[in-house]
Amino acid sequence: MKNLILICLILNVCVAHADDGYRLWLKYDLLSDASKRAEYQRFSTFIEVRTEPTPVVQTAQAELKRGIEGLLGAKVGATAKLKGGGIILQKNESLPEEGYRIESKDDNLFISGKDERGILYGCFELLRLMQTESPVSGIKIEQAPKIRLRMLNHWDNPLGTIERGYAGASLWKWYELPETIDPRYQDYARANASIGINAVAINNVNASARFLTTEYLSKVKALADVFRPYGIQVFLSINFASPKILDKLPNSDPLDPDVRKWWQEKAKEVYRYIPDFGGFLVKANSEGEPGPQEHGRTHADGANMLAEALRPFNGKVIWRAFVYSPDPAGDRFREAYNEFKPLDGLFDKNVVVQVKNGPIDFQPREPFHPLFGAMPKTPLAMEFQITQEYLGFSTNLVYLATLFKECLEADTYASGKGSTVAKVVDGSVHQYAFTAIAGVANTGSDRNWTGHLMSQANWYAYGRLAWDHTLSEAQIADEWIKMTWTKAPAAVLTIKNLMLRSREIYVNHTTPLGLHHVMGQGIHFGPEPWLSRSARPDWTSIYYHRADSAGIGFNRTVTGSNALGLYHPEVQKQWNNPETCDLNYLLWFHHVGWNKRLSTGKSLWDEFSARYYQGVEEVGWMQEEWAKVRDMVDPEMYADVAGRLAVQYREALNWRDACVLYFQTFSKKPVPAPFQQPTRTLEDLKKIVEIYQLK
Amino acid sequence: MKNLILICLILNVCVAHADDGYRLWLKYDLLSDASKRAEYQRFSTFIEVRTEPTPVVQTAQAELKRGIEGLLGAKVGATAKLKGGGIILQKNESLPEEGYRIESKDDNLFISGKDERGILYGCFELLRLMQTESPVSGIKIEQAPKIRLRMLNHWDNPLGTIERGYAGASLWKWYELPETIDPRYQDYARANASIGINAVAINNVNASARFLTTEYLSKVKALADVFRPYGIQVFLSINFASPKILDKLPNSDPLDPDVRKWWQEKAKEVYRYIPDFGGFLVKANSEGEPGPQEHGRTHADGANMLAEALRPFNGKVIWRAFVYSPDPAGDRFREAYNEFKPLDGLFDKNVVVQVKNGPIDFQPREPFHPLFGAMPKTPLAMEFQITQEYLGFSTNLVYLATLFKECLEADTYASGKGSTVAKVVDGSVHQYAFTAIAGVANTGSDRNWTGHLMSQANWYAYGRLAWDHTLSEAQIADEWIKMTWTKAPAAVLTIKNLMLRSREIYVNHTTPLGLHHVMGQGIHFGPEPWLSRSARPDWTSIYYHRADSAGIGFNRTVTGSNALGLYHPEVQKQWNNPETCDLNYLLWFHHVGWNKRLSTGKSLWDEFSARYYQGVEEVGWMQEEWAKVRDMVDPEMYADVAGRLAVQYREALNWRDACVLYFQTFSKKPVPAPFQQPTRTLEDLKKIVEIYQLK
Repeated sequence: MKNLILICLILNVCVAHADDGYRLWLKYDLLSDASKRAEYQRFSTFIEVRTEPTPVVQTAQAELKRGIEGLLGAKVGATAKLKGGGIILQKNESLPEEGYRIESKDDNLFISGKDERGILYGCFELLRLMQTESPVSGIKIEQAPKIRLRMLNHWDNPLGTIERGYAGASLWKWYELPETIDPRYQDYARANASIGINAVAINNVNASARFLTTEYLSKVKALADVFRPYGIQVFLSINFASPKILDKLPNSDPLDPDVRKWWQEKAKEVYRYIPDFGGFLVKANSEGEPGPQEHGRTHADGANMLAEALRPFNGKVIWRAFVYSPDPAGDRFREAYNEFKPLDGLFDKNVVVQVKNGPIDFQPREPFHPLFGAMPKTPLAMEFQITQEYLGFSTNLVYLATLFKECLEADTYASGKGSTVAKVVDGSVHQYAFTAIAGVANTGSDRNWTGHLMSQANWYAYGRLAWDHTLSEAQIADEWIKMTWTKAPAAVLTIKNLMLRSREIYVNHTTPLGLHHVMGQGIHFGPEPWLSRSARPDWTSIYYHRADSAGIGFNRTVTGSNALGLYHPEVQKQWNNPETCDLNYLLWFHHVGWNKRLSTGKSLWDEFSARYYQGVEEVGWMQEEWAKVRDMVDPEMYADVAGRLAVQYREALNWRDACVLYFQTFSKKPVPAPFQQPTRTLEDLKKIVEIYQLK
Repeated sequence: MKNLILICLILNVCVAHADDGYRLWLKYDLLSDASKRAEYQRFSTFIEVRTEPTPVVQTAQAELKRGIEGLLGAKVGATAKLKGGGIILQKNESLPEEGYRIESKDDNLFISGKDERGILYGCFELLRLMQTESPVSGIKIEQAPKIRLRMLNHWDNPLGTIERGYAGASLWKWYELPETIDPRYQDYARANASIGINAVAINNVNASARFLTTEYLSKVKALADVFRPYGIQVFLSINFASPKILDKLPNSDPLDPDVRKWWQEKAKEVYRYIPDFGGFLVKANSEGEPGPQEHGRTHADGANMLAEALRPFNGKVIWRAFVYSPDPAGDRFREAYNEFKPLDGLFDKNVVVQVKNGPIDFQPREPFHPLFGAMPKTPLAMEFQITQEYLGFSTNLVYLATLFKECLEADTYASGKGSTVAKVVDGSVHQYAFTAIAGVANTGSDRNWTGHLMSQANWYAYGRLAWDHTLSEAQIADEWIKMTWTKAPAAVLTIKNLMLRSREIYVNHTTPLGLHHVMGQGIHFGPEPWLSRSARPDWTSIYYHRADSAGIGFNRTVTGSNALGLYHPEVQKQWNNPETCDLNYLLWFHHVGWNKRLSTGKSLWDEFSARYYQGVEEVGWMQEEWAKVRDMVDPEMYADVAGRLAVQYREALNWRDACVLYFQTFSKKPVPAPFQQPTRTLEDLKKIVEIYQLK
């Protein structure tokens, strides 16, 4: 029988179609290294469950069996007929919450979890070790997540579109639910569980009230039922005006007893459908969404009303700090801080305030948000964006672990040196009672889930860092590549190198030296630095780059908006002197003269324009590097990435020419040698960008 | 080797995942009937091409090889080493255009085509015969399409959404094109070619001007390059105001020489990219789209300007007749006729006017459009809707061949009895020099292409009827079921019966007796017969149903709008007497008293409300029938349809209760025995429908 299955698997590989990327990093193809197979086979004859076989534990067992049978081409029994040679799943109360231990003992491998999730994560860890052909003999490892709630936020709309989604339609088929269950829901849950994600907010923060109707709660319940065995809790983004929209209450004032009662009743109803419901995610008084301020109340009033409704069920309120008002004389950089800092200490215990990594909006590079370290009494959740809204959609190769790590490791100095953003978020700086992190999902109906195959790495890396922010971007890339592409050492190295450099390359060809928010209006595609009018001043480009004949950049020092003053003095020190400021942040904080000599030895204009040219050349370099792995990876997957790199090259040229030509109208300076003046005119470029604004 | 492949295939079947429907009807799984395999094997040792191996011929050969190898588990050689036992592809100039002959002769099977497409279609025909286990020994069949241009119209938008699409996002990845070619494009083309579709308009008729920019033409070219080897021509929907939008011309007046020149230059550019480009599809002066009437010109002026630009390249203008102006005192039924009938004879030769099957808008049942038979000098293309905009999206099982056939076989009496709509469209009534038919596509990014697996049949049936409108709906269902689901005779019969009844069932539970246009506003989901205000009077429901205390229905006889007078007197005869009018069309043409005794012996109210109840019961019947085939079809596919039938049952209940309760407010009559008054209130139902109008 074993042989038959082995033959079957091998034949299957022979006749298999090209890989379409659907399986993500969960590829359980037969390992080609026979010695590794032999090593793992020593404990693969059975999987025994020595604890209550809850649905989550059964998921763990089934996944482990499926994985091992695929990787080793061996049949795995369900129970122990022998004393040794198997894997035992059990509980161990002494471990930290959701933690696990994998230990080789008495010829068996023990996966012990504090709880059922711990067991599940331990099983996925073992599979990851095997998929990456790592040693397991004599293993003894212990792991536990550093952050309690590790969420994905889906900006999915009820009609199946995704705000800022670049990988097709929403995975959730609202019209077909609850009676029709797409098998893909389960594969989605598997992928999340494999990287430790334990919660998902399934709908857009620009939320439709319909998700709180009975009609829709029955649909949400159907999804929750699929996710639960994978240890995943469901959250809903809510519309703050729901009492008014759904039941015609005269208002949605959080201090109105009728409104409070409405939310309490609604919470009860939600928990009748979903007993382990996670809670509400709220975007309020931001970009036109309703909120408590319309009624003269604060964000804390609004959040606490919801907290009161959810408290009996241990539900959480995740209240977003992404707010800014359209003040042409102000600085958007300061606004969330100005609004939320005074509220520190006023939020209920089951409220978390969710803060984007940077003060503006998911730019290719931002300084860390000044709220981190400034809210000691309020648990702050990190909000990263995995979907590449400002990072080239699904046509640009940008490995985001680099961006995530840069932010996580930034030092807030809130409690002295070493008070990194990561340590604020994981609670260790301020001893938060609850901790959370969110990533705005990049998943969609595209067969490969994320559009760009390399963007699968961003979903993966987000989950891994949410679990353990001390992992390095290189280590995460390494394991992802081995699980997804190839284990051939040369190819792993090539791909890893390319990934690790990719974000800096993207910054170079779009927004070097701290330039930010100069992309196409609304769509956020391509360059539009000339954008000078919009519905709001802070949606233009000129608001941010402030280019003039003298120079470029936003003066946020004490002589300007003094947004820099929101940071700890030690942080200010790094950035407040244009002579010593890290060039990556220069134009974030300083208006710099075109002739200003930089630490590179070049003038600002020369350095600035040269980086655009280098960025384009570096995309060419990525294409060359990618070509080197052609014969070492799946041909269909290879071709897909090669195609997208070619798109990126074309788009990078547009960025370069548009920005160099536009800013040249201020600097009046030539493109520095050895680079050549673009052959296209600024009008040519404007025409290309305008196409993407057409109906 | 043969044996190895056979084992391989069998094993592959053993270990195969559940079927996700991706392969559509092109399943080349090993035939289980050994005697049939033996019969087909007699000519499957080689495929020889005895004509120029153009890309289309190579496609035909490759597809035939792939199909036969799958179906028979045998290796097929490329060239003849033996004299007999193979398949020979060749040309035969004596056949009609795109026609083919399949003939068994001298121990070989000859597939002869008039042209390369004929060969391609002949190969797919042979595969269909084998997939359905039909006899091929001694075969001699000849086939040719009755309509020249057999199109799909995609209402796909540039940002990836699909207007009236219910199967996910657009298949076309505009941001990734032209450098990245999704392998799915090819599978899409295969499916179309297999049913004889030879043209596709790839973008929404509410058209973005961006498709005519150089940037986008290079993307469209990439798609055209994929489709060309499958005999498929690309058309573009154009925005009539493109000269103004793209190049800032002062206007888009079709008689302005600069505008005419602009289109001529644009046509040249398009043909530089796509030498076999099909032409332009135009929605003008309809629902807010720009058109010639803004400049005081006629539809003919607009169409002829484009025709002039396309004429040097043999391109076609397909000009839609779907126009109607918001006149509360008028009758939308008449408007396209009123506008287009006077233009007959004024269109250039390369213009086709595309007319929807009915006079309103793709309702579950409509009388045929009165323009058919009324435009002897203007080729009229039929426009069917395959996507189920008004037919339950992708949650309702509605086999549309029944609807298509009903329209095609309707008699216009334009040249005496037997002047069916089909014969108008195929040119035989008026000797049109060119003929065309279009179906609004139901394809999307859903893995199974069409959302509801049973909706695959509508794509299939559209193609088959476009090729040969004399095929019966039962025959098409029969072959589709055998290719898609099962060849077990009992299951085929059950599924076929269910399909053939499905459209009437849908009519019963939504719009019986000729009721029309009472669905939810904008979204077109669910019932909203109470809709009394909208941006336009003819977007409300009351405009159409005209219910009052006396009765219900739109009087379109001579005492009413006299829209009926637009038809030939013989057609009028069928419908103008409420005593004898086919009940299916009753409320289309008559305002009928609630107490009026119908030919069924029941009063109008009793018949009307009873049909809603019957419709719901019939959905229950479909569920029971479907349960009977559970063990005879793929389990994943079975479950998907079962889930959607359950959704349909819930939705049918909503339709029934909403319509019965609402119209009861006029009739003031009880629900007739044995049916029970709904337990819900009209307010309950309104609340459910309103959910789907929320942001």
